[in-house]
Amino acid sequence: SPAPAAADLPKPPASAAPPDDGQWTMPAKNDAATRYSALNQINGDNAKNLRVEFTFSTGTTHGEEAAPIVADNTMYIVTPWPNWVYALDLTKPGAPMKWKYEPPPIAASQGVACCDTVNRGGVFWQNKFYFNTLDGRTIALDVNTGKPVWITQLGDISKGESITMAPFLVKDKVLVGVSGGEFGVRGWTTALDANTGKIVWKAFHTGPDKDVLIGPDFHPFYTQDRGKDLGVSTWPPEAWKIGGGSNWGWMAYDPDLNLLYEEAANPGPWNAEQRPGDNLWTDGIFARDPDTGAAKWYYQYNPHDEHDYDGINEIILLDVPIDGKIRKVLMHPDRNGYLYMLDRTTGEIVSAHPYGYVNSIKTIDKKTGRPVVNPDKNTKLGTIVHDICPTASGAKDWEPSSFSPRTGYLYIPHENLCMDWENVQANYIAGTPYVGANVVMKPGPGGFRGEVSAWNVETGKPVWQIREDLPAWSGTLATAGDLVFYGTMDGWFKAVDAKTGALKWQFKTGSGIIGQPIAYRGPDGREYIAILSGVGGWSGAIVPGALDPRDPTGALGFVGAMADLKLKTAAGGTLYVFALPPS
Amino acid sequence: SPAPAAADLPKPPASAAPPDDGQWTMPAKNDAATRYSALNQINGDNAKNLRVEFTFSTGTTHGEEAAPIVADNTMYIVTPWPNWVYALDLTKPGAPMKWKYEPPPIAASQGVACCDTVNRGGVFWQNKFYFNTLDGRTIALDVNTGKPVWITQLGDISKGESITMAPFLVKDKVLVGVSGGEFGVRGWTTALDANTGKIVWKAFHTGPDKDVLIGPDFHPFYTQDRGKDLGVSTWPPEAWKIGGGSNWGWMAYDPDLNLLYEEAANPGPWNAEQRPGDNLWTDGIFARDPDTGAAKWYYQYNPHDEHDYDGINEIILLDVPIDGKIRKVLMHPDRNGYLYMLDRTTGEIVSAHPYGYVNSIKTIDKKTGRPVVNPDKNTKLGTIVHDICPTASGAKDWEPSSFSPRTGYLYIPHENLCMDWENVQANYIAGTPYVGANVVMKPGPGGFRGEVSAWNVETGKPVWQIREDLPAWSGTLATAGDLVFYGTMDGWFKAVDAKTGALKWQFKTGSGIIGQPIAYRGPDGREYIAILSGVGGWSGAIVPGALDPRDPTGALGFVGAMADLKLKTAAGGTLYVFALPPS
Ligand SMILES: O=C(O)c1cc(C(=O)O)c2c(n1)C(=O)C(=O)c1cc(C(=O)O)[nH]c1-2
Ligand SMILES: O=C(O)c1cc(C(=O)O)c2c(n1)C(=O)C(=O)c1cc(C(=O)O)[nH]c1-2
Repeated sequence: SPAPAAADLPKPPASAAPPDDGQWTMPAKNDAATRYSALNQINGDNAKNLRVEFTFSTGTTHGEEAAPIVADNTMYIVTPWPNWVYALDLTKPGAPMKWKYEPPPIAASQGVACCDTVNRGGVFWQNKFYFNTLDGRTIALDVNTGKPVWITQLGDISKGESITMAPFLVKDKVLVGVSGGEFGVRGWTTALDANTGKIVWKAFHTGPDKDVLIGPDFHPFYTQDRGKDLGVSTWPPEAWKIGGGSNWGWMAYDPDLNLLYEEAANPGPWNAEQRPGDNLWTDGIFARDPDTGAAKWYYQYNPHDEHDYDGINEIILLDVPIDGKIRKVLMHPDRNGYLYMLDRTTGEIVSAHPYGYVNSIKTIDKKTGRPVVNPDKNTKLGTIVHDICPTASGAKDWEPSSFSPRTGYLYIPHENLCMDWENVQANYIAGTPYVGANVVMKPGPGGFRGEVSAWNVETGKPVWQIREDLPAWSGTLATAGDLVFYGTMDGWFKAVDAKTGALKWQFKTGSGIIGQPIAYRGPDGREYIAILSGVGGWSGAIVPGALDPRDPTGALGFVGAMADLKLKTAAGGTLYVFALPPS
Repeated sequence: SPAPAAADLPKPPASAAPPDDGQWTMPAKNDAATRYSALNQINGDNAKNLRVEFTFSTGTTHGEEAAPIVADNTMYIVTPWPNWVYALDLTKPGAPMKWKYEPPPIAASQGVACCDTVNRGGVFWQNKFYFNTLDGRTIALDVNTGKPVWITQLGDISKGESITMAPFLVKDKVLVGVSGGEFGVRGWTTALDANTGKIVWKAFHTGPDKDVLIGPDFHPFYTQDRGKDLGVSTWPPEAWKIGGGSNWGWMAYDPDLNLLYEEAANPGPWNAEQRPGDNLWTDGIFARDPDTGAAKWYYQYNPHDEHDYDGINEIILLDVPIDGKIRKVLMHPDRNGYLYMLDRTTGEIVSAHPYGYVNSIKTIDKKTGRPVVNPDKNTKLGTIVHDICPTASGAKDWEPSSFSPRTGYLYIPHENLCMDWENVQANYIAGTPYVGANVVMKPGPGGFRGEVSAWNVETGKPVWQIREDLPAWSGTLATAGDLVFYGTMDGWFKAVDAKTGALKWQFKTGSGIIGQPIAYRGPDGREYIAILSGVGGWSGAIVPGALDPRDPTGALGFVGAMADLKLKTAAGGTLYVFALPPS
């Protein structure tokens, strides 16, 4: 059958994905979070000529997860702790530093990072660069001077709070969430005034309605999410106060609906027997009024999560033709292995298909909105439950997908891992790990540990799948040259054909890649592709953390699946920028 | 005048520079230490097409000074402390690791490194890879397994001994010298049996003749070096026991003469008023029988050194037509700013010309063999002597020159710095700094801090000079493509025309370059150029050492000259390998 005309394909709402100006001012590229670049100089025919244009070492050796940010011919990079920010001048040969900002770092914050001392990048807005620090601050820098305009301390490491996520900017507000689900924090998302750093609103992800900013406007689609103070009553007494539900991931914004989408991570502790109940509002998504924080609707991906299936993965806003009508949806490939299409006006499930190997959930019941869990994979005190798939890290973790309006495909980087899990008693001590599980991960069925798949949003089916030996822990980038870029944990940076998945080009960077590729138009009018190389993150923690490969429970069980990584790559943060030779 | 025929040009003795096999098995390429590659695919015409072929992160963030070593299609890299060794398989795409060796490191050794925790690389010989560790060990690895064949502990960090130099292999012996001139060590060079690691001989650089291996065969050219136990009598009582004269630099070997050339660094402490006398055998060069260590001749570059002018710079063996005869010489650009041509059979000075700006020495008296020092630049207790040139780090430091037999030029990477110096009392406490001087360095005349010069060995004159903003702290590589490669401390890797110095190509690596470039023939028959990027060393210590740019005395005075370096580059070790696109 002939390819459908582009007009028939899903596409992001225009208000949330304006015409490409060749810059890349926020990690997800736009409010719809498509990570799609309209630049098309680099394509499947000429990609073989791509070459390194320049490189820049970050001076750090932990996981480099940040997206490089490009605005006004300057590139901004945030490093892992101590969260240095570099501004590079793209108008000069070799892109020399314009300035470097070194926040005064609290070294002890490294001790409350669950999954390597990472940072997912910053945002450019009106001559300011916004980013978060592991020790719980949001900082706005003046891009001309590299000096702080304001610094707001949000997290408290003595309670186990840290921040690793990239701030998200809506109108004149900076949205920030806290990390610390493995330390018994009480999760929240907050909005700061972008000009002053003052807190405008703060929404907790557990506790009484007033703290969660649930009020008369709140209309969740499914009945179990309706009622008073469910963030208290779906927990044992007091447990919600140390119940996790952090937000260390991605958001999106629909300007037409004026809805902010923000998510909550796993409930704590991992030992679910210590917290009977649905544990609202963890592992779910809120639609909120960004001006007030007021909740509009909510959907819970994983009620009473037994497997650490944080709900913070990326949210991509699309308008999809369904049964002859355009439906306003959001796509969310959850850790639990299902790709959700939710109505973004109401929170109703439109569809939910597994995109990886899942045996912990049998199906998603579209009527109740609840996953039908496999009781064989329930976790228990004193019992090792074997071969739960996916792992605690999910069928995919935080590494974000991209969407091309030219193909209608979602490009999902993900994992193929399973685990053995034993509950143990967790005891809460502020600022220390509050987990309650012994976990050992291993490769999933087929033995490969990662995969990049192209997903047809309309049919709910994969179009192509690329198997990778190691977990696919980098984001993907889709371009109008019909290429998809991603990196591997042993350092290959690849360009594949967006339609077929055929490998068009690859380059071996210095360290494993777990970053977010971007594209931008340089001052010379050429298209450039940038990626940070630097292994780490949860999956790669064995390398920069110098963990013992003989202890499979290391890194909360990830070492079990990654004992060989030290022989495949070494640590080290470096920016790589690629282009075609000038013609 | 027409260019002289190649036959008339200086050239290394054939026995010390055999025909190029396309490998690079020792840092200086051959026993004559020419650092010249006969590969010529890459030349001035096509160098503009050079591109990064692959990269490899070392996992460390201190100065990367090692030469990559290539043998049997495998590349070996030694990192700064903790001195990891990587073997990379050049036959596979992206050159994946064959193995990684992690020595059990003594962390406290970092505290007795004067000038960053560097390592200058290893040597390949008969399926073993030899290297030294900062904590004083020489290790032989089986290249097939990456496991140690033997480990010999040579240095004792409790006495301030460390090792940073690359071992030098002569016949079946591994030659190693100790670092620690700034910690009051008693310097030595030792020979180990390459098969067993057993010590064959050990020659101290101070003390009684028997310890220095001075016996009946010793015939120094100049009278002041003749006499009994001068290594005792040229010092105040007992001072020779803590008098420095380490060997952390370069050696060379003439198979025809069966002479090993090895050198001694500065006397300690820097405060020369505490050690009246010539302080033999520091700051000089020995010719020895490599089988027994017996000294044959000696020449002292800097008697009673007042300025830390270590004598350990590179030694390049050449046969030079002089007055119609071929003279067997060695070239040594000393820290004191003079390029020495010594008769390598006798130790007589053939010529000595300044190759940088020098005001601490007026001339070298060829009759006495002694420098005529400028009394205005004598250092004194309680007095700041201003504008001494060159600095303690020399007109050049350890970064080695190369020589092309096609041009007859020596390519000298060096510095242009001056200093203010005040002697202070030094008190010896084993294992702690024993220096006795407050030093502040600054740019030399003209304001530029570094230079690469091509030196006509026959005329004793510079042919071209390239000024660099920052000290030229990387080695140079000369190739038969008539190119000279070197790196800058802000990360540019450059290829210049060997005849004119014209820039032919440059690439911005991730971090400042202070390494040793090499060339090799890949398994595919192509010519490859490799360099480690990673700022550090003494001059760059401010970056990986995170020193305060406001204290100019930091890093023994180097911060004074390098306060801006943190804004020019960031730390991080990465291997870059370049080639032309396959044709
Ligand atoms: O619950 C939390 O607060 C929290 C925080 C983080 C984080 O901040 O990096 C991770 C996780 N959880 C987590 O579950 C997880 O899989 C994870 C992976 C990574 C990473 O950077 O690779 N971080 C985190
Ligand atoms: O006297 C010594 O033992 C000693 C050791 C070292 C070393 O081992 O790196 C240096 C020096 N001195 C020294 O004087 C010097 O200029 C120097 C520079 C460097 C470097 O790696 O950049 N090391 C050393």
